[in-house]
Amino acid sequence: MPVHQASFRISTQGRCDVKDITGEVARIVAASKLRHGVVNVSGKGSTLAVTTIEFEPGCVSDLKRALEKIAPMNSDYAHNARWGDDNGYAHLRSALMGTTQSFPLSGGKLAIGTWQQIVLCDFDERPREREVMVTVVGD
Amino acid sequence: MPVHQASFRISTQGRCDVKDITGEVARIVAASKLRHGVVNVSGKGSTLAVTTIEFEPGCVSDLKRALEKIAPMNSDYAHNARWGDDNGYAHLRSALMGTTQSFPLSGGKLAIGTWQQIVLCDFDERPREREVMVTVVGD
Amino acid sequence: MPVHQASFRISTQGRCDVKDITGEVARIVAASKLRHGVVNVSGKGSTLAVTTIEFEPGCVSDLKRALEKIAPMNSDYAHNARWGDDNGYAHLRSALMGTTQSFPLSGGKLAIGTWQQIVLCDFDERPREREVMVTVVGD
Repeated sequence: MPVHQASFRISTQGRCDVKDITGEVARIVAASKLRHGVVNVSGKGSTLAVTTIEFEPGCVSDLKRALEKIAPMNSDYAHNARWGDDNGYAHLRSALMGTTQSFPLSGGKLAIGTWQQIVLCDFDERPREREVMVTVVGD
Repeated sequence: MPVHQASFRISTQGRCDVKDITGEVARIVAASKLRHGVVNVSGKGSTLAVTTIEFEPGCVSDLKRALEKIAPMNSDYAHNARWGDDNGYAHLRSALMGTTQSFPLSGGKLAIGTWQQIVLCDFDERPREREVMVTVVGD
Repeated sequence: MPVHQASFRISTQGRCDVKDITGEVARIVAASKLRHGVVNVSGKGSTLAVTTIEFEPGCVSDLKRALEKIAPMNSDYAHNARWGDDNGYAHLRSALMGTTQSFPLSGGKLAIGTWQQIVLCDFDERPREREVMVTVVGD
């Protein structure tokens, strides 16, 4: 079968919790037994993002600080005013960054850089259990 | 591998018109009869973006305001100076956000969150008719 | 064969060198002989981005200026402080923009706009030789 799909759950602390999910994604890729194609990694929800970064505390801290400038947690948001919510910043960050990324599968492995990890950024204002779906399409 | 591809057209007002296209995408996905795989949604052009957001007026307003800070409509752009255009901000927003996103197809349905809609953001400075192409690859 | 994958190398100057890679991507797409599907374009590494833009000097200049505001080259980064590096801004820009994009393949051609080019943005602080992988999945 040329499509392999599986999801996993991950607990997050929210408020811009950046989690390295490369290992979980790689395990699903390995289980697919597929060799070449595309690996789609998608977080479900509108207050999170999926991207890549060198997962070390410095880069993660720099990302958090930059996002705090672009979409501060404590600011005035129309979403908050309308619904009594506190996560307008989280929706905004998610829309700007995107909730999904696709990577090459080459020789049975994720073709990403040595210092490049796949991360889930949970922006929501409270701890969540998130679902990440991994879809491998190839041969 | 089965591929199903179709496009649709949508009229926009420009100047950061955010349109919910989840319904159109879902109809093409349903017509594909495919069950598992990846759904690519791409807007054609260099002054638009495709992303996801909770499509309610507050979040949409927050997104417009943030983009107006990142790339103001009325500012100095080298693109405008060079070509006599007025849409330098639109090119910039498009390059920063991206014109394409891919989502999982699971059990015949788009695997996105309940409060997560797929949107086309048309940044151009005038009304347009845009083409969005939906490609389903799977089985 | 439903998957065609090839990579190419490209020399960059770094410090936000924006290179038009549409021709290289189109050549790999043509060699695939595939007609419909999805074309994934991925740069390998954590200090680069792949996006689309109208590739003319004005738009490219506007993008560079905007990124310099969002993540200035000369600023304080925790990544730099921790590792003695000078490319904290590059990691940040890459995480915000993403290293991969997927485009529709339609009738044997990349379905992108006339004024829309695929670009590799190399943010790193020195010249590099970058690898870009192109994966075509379709029929």
